[in-house]
Amino acid sequence: MNPIEKLGQKAEFLIEVLPYIRSFHGKTIVIKYGGSAMTEEHLKRQFAEDVVLMKFVGMHPIIVHGGGPQISGMMKRLGKEPEFIKGVRVTDPETMAIVEMVLGGSVNKEIVTLINQMGGKGVGLTGKDGGLIRAKALSGQEDSMGHVGEVASIDADILRTLDEGRFIPVISPIAADASGKSYNINADLVAGALASALSAEKLLILTDVRGILDGNKQLLPSLSRTDVQGLIQEGVIGGGMLPKIEAALSTVESGVRKAHIIDGRVPHALLLEIFTDQGVGTEIVA
Amino acid sequence: MNPIEKLGQKAEFLIEVLPYIRSFHGKTIVIKYGGSAMTEEHLKRQFAEDVVLMKFVGMHPIIVHGGGPQISGMMKRLGKEPEFIKGVRVTDPETMAIVEMVLGGSVNKEIVTLINQMGGKGVGLTGKDGGLIRAKALSGQEDSMGHVGEVASIDADILRTLDEGRFIPVISPIAADASGKSYNINADLVAGALASALSAEKLLILTDVRGILDGNKQLLPSLSRTDVQGLIQEGVIGGGMLPKIEAALSTVESGVRKAHIIDGRVPHALLLEIFTDQGVGTEIVA
Amino acid sequence: MNPIEKLGQKAEFLIEVLPYIRSFHGKTIVIKYGGSAMTEEHLKRQFAEDVVLMKFVGMHPIIVHGGGPQISGMMKRLGKEPEFIKGVRVTDPETMAIVEMVLGGSVNKEIVTLINQMGGKGVGLTGKDGGLIRAKALSGQEDSMGHVGEVASIDADILRTLDEGRFIPVISPIAADASGKSYNINADLVAGALASALSAEKLLILTDVRGILDGNKQLLPSLSRTDVQGLIQEGVIGGGMLPKIEAALSTVESGVRKAHIIDGRVPHALLLEIFTDQGVGTEIVA
Amino acid sequence: MNPIEKLGQKAEFLIEVLPYIRSFHGKTIVIKYGGSAMTEEHLKRQFAEDVVLMKFVGMHPIIVHGGGPQISGMMKRLGKEPEFIKGVRVTDPETMAIVEMVLGGSVNKEIVTLINQMGGKGVGLTGKDGGLIRAKALSGQEDSMGHVGEVASIDADILRTLDEGRFIPVISPIAADASGKSYNINADLVAGALASALSAEKLLILTDVRGILDGNKQLLPSLSRTDVQGLIQEGVIGGGMLPKIEAALSTVESGVRKAHIIDGRVPHALLLEIFTDQGVGTEIVA
Amino acid sequence: MNPIEKLGQKAEFLIEVLPYIRSFHGKTIVIKYGGSAMTEEHLKRQFAEDVVLMKFVGMHPIIVHGGGPQISGMMKRLGKEPEFIKGVRVTDPETMAIVEMVLGGSVNKEIVTLINQMGGKGVGLTGKDGGLIRAKALSGQEDSMGHVGEVASIDADILRTLDEGRFIPVISPIAADASGKSYNINADLVAGALASALSAEKLLILTDVRGILDGNKQLLPSLSRTDVQGLIQEGVIGGGMLPKIEAALSTVESGVRKAHIIDGRVPHALLLEIFTDQGVGTEIVA
Amino acid sequence: MNPIEKLGQKAEFLIEVLPYIRSFHGKTIVIKYGGSAMTEEHLKRQFAEDVVLMKFVGMHPIIVHGGGPQISGMMKRLGKEPEFIKGVRVTDPETMAIVEMVLGGSVNKEIVTLINQMGGKGVGLTGKDGGLIRAKALSGQEDSMGHVGEVASIDADILRTLDEGRFIPVISPIAADASGKSYNINADLVAGALASALSAEKLLILTDVRGILDGNKQLLPSLSRTDVQGLIQEGVIGGGMLPKIEAALSTVESGVRKAHIIDGRVPHALLLEIFTDQGVGTEIVA
Repeated sequence: MNPIEKLGQKAEFLIEVLPYIRSFHGKTIVIKYGGSAMTEEHLKRQFAEDVVLMKFVGMHPIIVHGGGPQISGMMKRLGKEPEFIKGVRVTDPETMAIVEMVLGGSVNKEIVTLINQMGGKGVGLTGKDGGLIRAKALSGQEDSMGHVGEVASIDADILRTLDEGRFIPVISPIAADASGKSYNINADLVAGALASALSAEKLLILTDVRGILDGNKQLLPSLSRTDVQGLIQEGVIGGGMLPKIEAALSTVESGVRKAHIIDGRVPHALLLEIFTDQGVGTEIVA
Repeated sequence: MNPIEKLGQKAEFLIEVLPYIRSFHGKTIVIKYGGSAMTEEHLKRQFAEDVVLMKFVGMHPIIVHGGGPQISGMMKRLGKEPEFIKGVRVTDPETMAIVEMVLGGSVNKEIVTLINQMGGKGVGLTGKDGGLIRAKALSGQEDSMGHVGEVASIDADILRTLDEGRFIPVISPIAADASGKSYNINADLVAGALASALSAEKLLILTDVRGILDGNKQLLPSLSRTDVQGLIQEGVIGGGMLPKIEAALSTVESGVRKAHIIDGRVPHALLLEIFTDQGVGTEIVA
Repeated sequence: MNPIEKLGQKAEFLIEVLPYIRSFHGKTIVIKYGGSAMTEEHLKRQFAEDVVLMKFVGMHPIIVHGGGPQISGMMKRLGKEPEFIKGVRVTDPETMAIVEMVLGGSVNKEIVTLINQMGGKGVGLTGKDGGLIRAKALSGQEDSMGHVGEVASIDADILRTLDEGRFIPVISPIAADASGKSYNINADLVAGALASALSAEKLLILTDVRGILDGNKQLLPSLSRTDVQGLIQEGVIGGGMLPKIEAALSTVESGVRKAHIIDGRVPHALLLEIFTDQGVGTEIVA
Repeated sequence: MNPIEKLGQKAEFLIEVLPYIRSFHGKTIVIKYGGSAMTEEHLKRQFAEDVVLMKFVGMHPIIVHGGGPQISGMMKRLGKEPEFIKGVRVTDPETMAIVEMVLGGSVNKEIVTLINQMGGKGVGLTGKDGGLIRAKALSGQEDSMGHVGEVASIDADILRTLDEGRFIPVISPIAADASGKSYNINADLVAGALASALSAEKLLILTDVRGILDGNKQLLPSLSRTDVQGLIQEGVIGGGMLPKIEAALSTVESGVRKAHIIDGRVPHALLLEIFTDQGVGTEIVA
Repeated sequence: MNPIEKLGQKAEFLIEVLPYIRSFHGKTIVIKYGGSAMTEEHLKRQFAEDVVLMKFVGMHPIIVHGGGPQISGMMKRLGKEPEFIKGVRVTDPETMAIVEMVLGGSVNKEIVTLINQMGGKGVGLTGKDGGLIRAKALSGQEDSMGHVGEVASIDADILRTLDEGRFIPVISPIAADASGKSYNINADLVAGALASALSAEKLLILTDVRGILDGNKQLLPSLSRTDVQGLIQEGVIGGGMLPKIEAALSTVESGVRKAHIIDGRVPHALLLEIFTDQGVGTEIVA
Repeated sequence: MNPIEKLGQKAEFLIEVLPYIRSFHGKTIVIKYGGSAMTEEHLKRQFAEDVVLMKFVGMHPIIVHGGGPQISGMMKRLGKEPEFIKGVRVTDPETMAIVEMVLGGSVNKEIVTLINQMGGKGVGLTGKDGGLIRAKALSGQEDSMGHVGEVASIDADILRTLDEGRFIPVISPIAADASGKSYNINADLVAGALASALSAEKLLILTDVRGILDGNKQLLPSLSRTDVQGLIQEGVIGGGMLPKIEAALSTVESGVRKAHIIDGRVPHALLLEIFTDQGVGTEIVA
């Protein structure tokens, strides 16, 4: 392939993405960012590139990030052993303080900085900023883990304001209740709640797996609530995948058109999901 | 290359264009459209795709088209022999009426329709619409060819209005003087005058040659007014290329940052020019 | 009458129009322009004056023009005999190309130029521009006359955009279907469909007759659908008047307050219709 | 003249005013309203009609009214003899209170009501409202007539606000100084000061004379400051005409394009002045 | 208390008002201004201060004033004896003229001037200005008192326009009917009608009593329509208090959240009512 | 003092603040928040109340906070001894990471939460968010302390965007350079730079001292650069006060009207500074 042919091929691909750019123009895409895509250097960089490109071609990407490993790491440095009950971090006041520092002060700003370096204008927020998220204690677990919460309500005013200004919001899953008490909330659930509140076009959850697999390790391209219940009973899915699936299911049931659980280890997974018909994971359908 | 690798390669190319999207965001690009790109089916279609993509990623493309062959064709069908003096069409009143019908009624609307089919919103204009261009007789040639004109002044109000509405203007190089008399104006000069009046970021002139070549048929990547004068004296350039070069030169001299004479026969020439550093023609510099 | 008395009389008349200016302020008036008003020099000029005055005193006039005689004229010059079946022009591809050139390139721009000369800012459009009109083949007649169409849908975005900018839209009754195929549509029906889509205050159809006459050649000041059906059965009305009446009837039935078929041969027929209680034709009522 | 001819004549006159409507579109016209035009029923009504028409065709008329006879009438009813020194009303506190009541409460609202009846939206103001005019004592006369003032400064914010809302301001020539003390100001001078502050297109001063006459009682169509000085020395002009001429002169000298002293006894004097080339008085030129 | 302690105490009070500022932010408060608060110098000044403060901290106060004593005073000076039937002033044409002069020309502008001196931007209006209030004859009393009216309808356009411009409207209870005839309307009823039309947050009626008292002269903090009917039957309330109570009742019944009859003799009665929980009068509840 | 008198006294004080509210309306006030006001519970709460009140009465407060003690505390918990050279914290990469977590994740969000509890809408930012601050290494000290920086440039776009949305920005003094490297910047200097960039009305620096004292421990109400140089030479001022004074001096020299170093230990120090003439510290003058 000579240089001109190569250029031609590149132009062809640009044109292939035109229908996708057209149909997502002005639409909100909520992205749960986590896993390898948040830890491996080249994937981090590609994620930031993807988000900035999405913004420039007219979409409104909104990032919600996790940071479990970073939290556990800091806890250990402070001589505190991370503890989990049914996959949920036991969050006493001291742990909560560490969560806030690590997520809001470190992880969030690292993402903002990467976005800025790619030419975007990231703005880091927690659920506290602008009163974005009001939290409450996670029902049924108030006693054992005082600072594990869930979303009580959302006031998306700050996101709409930032949107007018060409900014890309990056959100840590931390929020306060009416009394000012802080809560750590599962980032998948925060992403789902924001997608619903914003009537987003799409919810994308980045994971470290190829998608949802069946009993034979085959990728399931699409799953409904009924399918999911079957897979849980068969013991095929469980663990950390459950909140992701639940977030996706309740989001599509609230009217968001599409939710996908995608493989964040694939380079430029976001672009492939948005700009091709070949999905890189499993779509969750209402 | 397996499918995933192929996807990855596509994503990589999308990311390569990010810096270009960033730097052209919100900028006006005036495009003189003519030659093969206006007659060969696949090039026509690609041109419309390129323009719509430019609009969707945030640029403001403005098209000025010619149509000499189509005018001559209709003249012959009406039993009228096209005549040229020093490359300029002799334009008596009857010819002028044909020019208006062919350019404004046929060629212009064909381009608009192609843009619409690619998902854009083309709006065809002549210099008369909204009072966009005020014409005057081409100086020095008033007598022999009554309806050959030049740009006297520009009122870009209609272009700004359309721009707010996400429309892509497609302009025929026809305008009237204060008395309402119609003039046919060289499309290269109209494109250059609009680029200057709009403080465009770039003027792109599509041709049917590789660019400006030197005496040894080597492509000249960049040319200044001094260079051009030399080449004219050497007899290397002349004919229809002269108004193109003159339009480009006076445009950059009026403050427009860049003007390029590019090879419209290359597939997706516009995208390659905008989105790569490998130009597909000659840059005219102030 | 001495000069001062004469001035006084003029002032009195200006004041007589105040109630009309008041009640039409900010209202849309769709005008089907055709017949003598489009061919006789002094009527053409007066029409343009009337439209510009309407715009300046706060109305939003929208012009839809025909051009049958001009099309037939050009066809003959090209050695092609115009042919009609039940009053509808047989429109093969070659005829369609001529229709587009004559209406969009010649007739339309002549009207625009006249409006500009009166101090207005005319902007010529076809149904293709800005995707204003989507056409479909005229039902029942697909085979015999491939390019005769009707209005499938209207996207008035471009008209609203132009309206903000103080422009006067001048529309040729040509549109494309989804595949890009061009259609010639009866201008009366286009005017009616636009009046309905825009919730216009009034539809005015200029003709070359005094209005609708009864069997004794007396002007009928007002007609309902029932009246029309009677007159058709009596054979009193028919021919080219039928689409005009049908356009007017379906427009008022869609909620537009008033539709009038008026005598375009009367000097300043538009102003008299708008600014006096003495109509110059027949009102069609729902 | 048959009815159709009569209609035609009316339409012709409407078209004659088009160039005037065009050139005054969006322009501010300050009108000093006084004399017979304010006392004779048919002239009052015509004045209101004229102003409302001006507003509807796109101008911004601003009315400043006087009311000397009405003030003197009320003073007499209250047993107080009006007194003048060099043409200026001696204004003690009690007189000032009467001035405010008569101008702001009675004369102003009568004009507002008339405008409203003609379909306009008049809004009565004094210089106090919205802080429009800051007054100071008339220089050189502080002692003898405590409440005779002049314009110290203008804050036109309230006029601009009303203008956005399609209202017609009607202004009484009363204002306060920084301490809140009220002043009666010559209405001609207030009109002139507002015209200057608003960069009005025109100042029109309605009087009860044909205009400025020369020694032979011939109307002078146009006067400069030099001319005026000559006429004063000759004793041809003086009295109440002086502040009118001074207001007009300083207004045009401040950059307002035109100032006219016109005959308010002529029916529809405003329309004739605005919409014809035959002025009805004397133009004051810079 | 040393100076620093005193400052601290002041700061504490500022903070005490924060919740009130927060909850009234952007809300409309209609205030009926009358009685001692309108006649005693220090109360007048305090009233103006209170209104300007309300405006600066984000509320939209709208003042409706009365002026019975001032009207009667002027009538006597003009040798005309004020006459009342069932508490309503007999208003013949001559009296109406006096009412307009006194309220619109004198009382209104005095309030405007005071507001301006406190740093606000008062704008005086009657119901005629901007067509704010359309009046009709008071039903049942058309014959005896030709110019006593009631509110027929409200067009709040002028109030919304002034609101954008940071102005404080001050309204005289005078309005015209469609024929232009003037009416004097009870100011309490005008205030109530405006509060309803504007969906105000609160109606405050300033009086010269402590509020509504029961048979034992004890202040009633809150009253419903049923309570009121009982008190009327007991003969405890009557006279001028009746229209105030009726205005308040119909206002809250129309959906305005709160209406209060408060003691205008208390210094800064408005601020106390707005900024504390200790009301200074009686709340009327739906 | 009976309850009514007490209310009256409160109202009086509200009115005393009116002139201050008036003159600061719409003005930006940059506040450096630190010291006791950031550590003692009742002072923290009062600070948040003061800021929210300022916002509600129409000012635009912008908070820049420090957090030295909190940083040192966390360092010790992580087994790292804080080290200072000439008062500047030695900031190696590990320390920088701690600074970001403590300031951006913990201290910042605590302030945001307090503001929200008082009814405001705080939004926490670092200099990285929205590209607010571009940092560079502190000149002259690049080697020894890699992550100590200074302000290179400010892009206040994010602050203007938040301002439209009624949000209160709370800023941590952390920023990145073009390569994405993080820097810790002295908060006093950040506050000064923002005040200059925003053309603020005032810069307020909260400290734990009464203000600048002279050699006799007397409060100096006002200081110029010359005065400061003298005091430094005398050895009267030094240490942590120097960057505060330098920030204040360069701010007023850049055109900000006023800068004050105030005693944050005084309850409601902000309100006293803004709303009284009795300052609570030292004014720095240009």
